[in-house]
Amino acid sequence: MPKQVDHHERRQAIARALWRVVEQRGVTHLTVREVAREAGMSHGQLQHYFATREAMLSFAMDFASEQTSLRVGRGLQELGDEPHPRDVLRLMLTEMLPLHADARATSRMSAAFVLEALHNENFHARARDGMTQGKLLVEQLIRQAIADGHIGSDRDPVTEAHLLLALTGFTTLLELGVIEPREALAAVDHHLDRLFQV
Amino acid sequence: MPKQVDHHERRQAIARALWRVVEQRGVTHLTVREVAREAGMSHGQLQHYFATREAMLSFAMDFASEQTSLRVGRGLQELGDEPHPRDVLRLMLTEMLPLHADARATSRMSAAFVLEALHNENFHARARDGMTQGKLLVEQLIRQAIADGHIGSDRDPVTEAHLLLALTGFTTLLELGVIEPREALAAVDHHLDRLFQV
Repeated sequence: MPKQVDHHERRQAIARALWRVVEQRGVTHLTVREVAREAGMSHGQLQHYFATREAMLSFAMDFASEQTSLRVGRGLQELGDEPHPRDVLRLMLTEMLPLHADARATSRMSAAFVLEALHNENFHARARDGMTQGKLLVEQLIRQAIADGHIGSDRDPVTEAHLLLALTGFTTLLELGVIEPREALAAVDHHLDRLFQV
Repeated sequence: MPKQVDHHERRQAIARALWRVVEQRGVTHLTVREVAREAGMSHGQLQHYFATREAMLSFAMDFASEQTSLRVGRGLQELGDEPHPRDVLRLMLTEMLPLHADARATSRMSAAFVLEALHNENFHARARDGMTQGKLLVEQLIRQAIADGHIGSDRDPVTEAHLLLALTGFTTLLELGVIEPREALAAVDHHLDRLFQV
């Protein structure tokens, strides 16, 4: 295996170890030492791949976003050639919620990153930019759906995009068992049904 | 001052110090040592008031919930004798969002508690029970508003309560500066307008 590929794969393996630490033990355990232990390497070996905790966390977050995008991409393929915009928005939203094991891992990683971002300017800018891109994409999809007559022309794409993104608030309700996955999905479907009521 | 009152006030002062640690430095700094320093006392002095980190965090969370309830209570008084249910729901929801300094402190405290709750059964049960109570209260308000003809009788109070609570997802969007406070409020108002469209 070429050395560069191996290097990248080791970094991804460390990122997955970091996710496991966050998912199973929580952000208070998010230290280079604990991630190294989880990845089955020494502190020194890990530093060969990531010089700092910040670099490690940053890579792990990018990798989580990448994996979420891949899951959405696979979901889109299953929707066929010309997917209905309602299904596209539903897929994007539900893959951000902790409704299955992979999504839970990336969702908890993302929550940990947001928390760190509140006190780290670099992370703050990156988290903001990532979410802003997502917001603009949702806005664009809604705008197109209005143009195509799937959503009423009286709807404001900006406000509707904000409301859809805010529904990621289901994350906490699901994580704490306040509501069941089927209840979250029913509410999301209800919201989308109303949005696509022409 | 009676000793018991002084004891309680000192505990509240420590809780406020804990909030400041969470708000200004983040959950990774949420240790007994850092809270003691922020409260201007020694580790030993703090332990006179809270035997464990868990007891301290638990009290700080209860105190945050209490303060949020007091803010909502004051807001309700301002709404007058027979407040419109739309205004009541708006008040409850917006006081959970980081839209002003006090709400930001309790919102960050609550986020920190939820994160710990994912890996602490005792906290998990308490966070779940607290949110479930809030959910049932919102449901009850919607049910009553339907009975009083303020909300259409075709609406399902359970689903509508879930959607309203999920809008606490605005917290992350606001904290990261992805959207502005006025945009969050506009979206909340838009959602409520639709809910109260008979």
